[in-house]
Amino acid sequence: MLFCKDSLFTPGPTPIPERVQKAMSQPMVAHRSKVFSKNLEEVATRLQPVFGTKEPVIIVAGSGTSALESAVCNVINEGDHVVVVVTGVFGERFASICEAYGAEVHRLNITWGKTCQPEELEDYLKTVNQPIKAVFATYCETSTAVLNPIKELGEVTKRISDALFIVDGVSCIGGVPVNMEEYQIDILVSGSQKALMLPPGLAFIAVNQRGKEAIKNGTSKRFYLDLNRYIQSYDEQTTTPFTPPVSLIYGANEVCQMIEEEGFEQVIKRHAVMRDMTRAGVQALELPLFVEKDADASPTVTSIRPEDGQANAIKNYLQEHFSMTIASGQKQLKGEIFRIGHMGYCTPFDVIQYLTALEFAVNALYEKDVFGLAVKTAQEVWKKHV
Amino acid sequence: MLFCKDSLFTPGPTPIPERVQKAMSQPMVAHRSKVFSKNLEEVATRLQPVFGTKEPVIIVAGSGTSALESAVCNVINEGDHVVVVVTGVFGERFASICEAYGAEVHRLNITWGKTCQPEELEDYLKTVNQPIKAVFATYCETSTAVLNPIKELGEVTKRISDALFIVDGVSCIGGVPVNMEEYQIDILVSGSQKALMLPPGLAFIAVNQRGKEAIKNGTSKRFYLDLNRYIQSYDEQTTTPFTPPVSLIYGANEVCQMIEEEGFEQVIKRHAVMRDMTRAGVQALELPLFVEKDADASPTVTSIRPEDGQANAIKNYLQEHFSMTIASGQKQLKGEIFRIGHMGYCTPFDVIQYLTALEFAVNALYEKDVFGLAVKTAQEVWKKHV
Repeated sequence: MLFCKDSLFTPGPTPIPERVQKAMSQPMVAHRSKVFSKNLEEVATRLQPVFGTKEPVIIVAGSGTSALESAVCNVINEGDHVVVVVTGVFGERFASICEAYGAEVHRLNITWGKTCQPEELEDYLKTVNQPIKAVFATYCETSTAVLNPIKELGEVTKRISDALFIVDGVSCIGGVPVNMEEYQIDILVSGSQKALMLPPGLAFIAVNQRGKEAIKNGTSKRFYLDLNRYIQSYDEQTTTPFTPPVSLIYGANEVCQMIEEEGFEQVIKRHAVMRDMTRAGVQALELPLFVEKDADASPTVTSIRPEDGQANAIKNYLQEHFSMTIASGQKQLKGEIFRIGHMGYCTPFDVIQYLTALEFAVNALYEKDVFGLAVKTAQEVWKKHV
Repeated sequence: MLFCKDSLFTPGPTPIPERVQKAMSQPMVAHRSKVFSKNLEEVATRLQPVFGTKEPVIIVAGSGTSALESAVCNVINEGDHVVVVVTGVFGERFASICEAYGAEVHRLNITWGKTCQPEELEDYLKTVNQPIKAVFATYCETSTAVLNPIKELGEVTKRISDALFIVDGVSCIGGVPVNMEEYQIDILVSGSQKALMLPPGLAFIAVNQRGKEAIKNGTSKRFYLDLNRYIQSYDEQTTTPFTPPVSLIYGANEVCQMIEEEGFEQVIKRHAVMRDMTRAGVQALELPLFVEKDADASPTVTSIRPEDGQANAIKNYLQEHFSMTIASGQKQLKGEIFRIGHMGYCTPFDVIQYLTALEFAVNALYEKDVFGLAVKTAQEVWKKHV
């Protein structure tokens, strides 16, 4: 094979732009300095439109799971009844964290590869004959590549119950629209290593007034993830309660700059176009999409289920022949699907690149002549936006 | 339009690999230190196979033109008769430099877009009824994208005359094979910003024994470009006579590392495949190649002459719609051709990228439906090497 530059198309971590790398390479500063506080404030407020919130975004040093846990441990108390919409691995993780904190968890299990329809949630909520403390849902379920209809799920939650609506936006915030007020979300969490073009290490938590009150009244034992501490430190001193990841915050500020330069509307549009290009291209190759309905598909990740269980063979082919990394399936989808991340620092040309590679894989593994086919189909989609 | 990462496909400067950028970002060191001398020696010797020489390569801080001038001013004395093979702008530059040093220049003018055939040089040399001091030729003529048959021209030069054979390898060394002994080259020069994946700023000069003697006996006035000083400083103290560009040398060492990791044979093959992919793809789009014969085409740059003089429109289309920079024509070819560089840190996926962009340009400017066509054709070429 000929030399190829390493390329990374997993649904997180995702590639880091050079200018973000550079921003993160600035000399270390004291985290109790004015210059750091200024940076923190800039990031917390510049991220507001991205999270669709009117409050500064809370920033914690931790992984996406720490973000999920903070959304649980601050508001869920032992014995609380919660409903968790489970559309895949990360819905299940929300449920596990709730159980770890002693909640009574009511799982609304949805067939993997499908989204939760508002009627399903409505029907389910009506079966829970208990006061529900919170409804948990996943915006983009990374493990299956669906994008749940969060706005509609928020509407149902608030119409049927008095519950908090808590959303995992880890693998899509930064690439999809969201408005916490309009979507009736009380707590929205995300991580740095997906559409936000940063290395792993930052957990983001956006909270509205009702969320803040619930956090204030939380009784679960917690210390590092106690969001009251973060809110208080920020409000009173524009700082963090514990040592923050200074370099990542510098990087996050540059990410905000890039999003503002491109325009967030354009960022959202780019992700939608990349999803549509990917789905059209994959279908042209007659590789079955795991998420059947276009309306269910995430703009940030696409999952493909080859009929003959060739998922791993295709994934390995791309790695071996093109130094290209995509993701396999998780849990029950292991070996069944492969997943391609197209979020953050990713453009339509990147889509052309992995479609070209997929054409080679199909040619080699299926002995079908498909050169140019996926590319051509994707170009037809891209054309309207060139 | 949607956001695209800036892409650079000019025939120099070319993209710099991240690891080379990183190598160049090392803290500054004293240039009269052991650590710098060690670096200089590593670069001078690791570049030997790339220049096909048994001698350490001489490194001067300067542009490609300074490399050309050093190949002239060190061996050509006032009144010397020289033959310059002129196949484009850079052949003409060699002639101009020779004239600036008072040489009697005999130009063998070749139609632009064609290579100089050995028979043409043979016939021409026979018409010069003077002792010829040197024959100058351009390996890759960047302005037209031909690769002259240097080995054959060297053979003719040495068979017919007693002249030095001096070769400009600026826009191809690092991407093409060369062997100074076999090709009978006495002086071979190049620059850093082409196939060698570095920023502009380094001039490389490879000299054999006969070249060294000529340099020793040169009488033209010179100081900074006096190669005797460089040879002496290197031989006696493994250093340079004047302050060297320390960071670029660090970068050059990393470039050598990369070339060795890939294997120079593979590097050469990759360039040949990129040329073949590009030519096949461009032809599929019915865009006329400026260099008609495959055997004349350079592996590092391709020139295209759209029939209706749309060269600049296509170039501008790529810039405006895809943030993609290619090159226009120079001098008499201004507005007539456009040129795509595919050398150095460039892979078949990059070829796919600019062919995809060209398809969009042809669709838009010619109202022809060519989506997937160039890509498919290029994939057929690449396939044999995947």
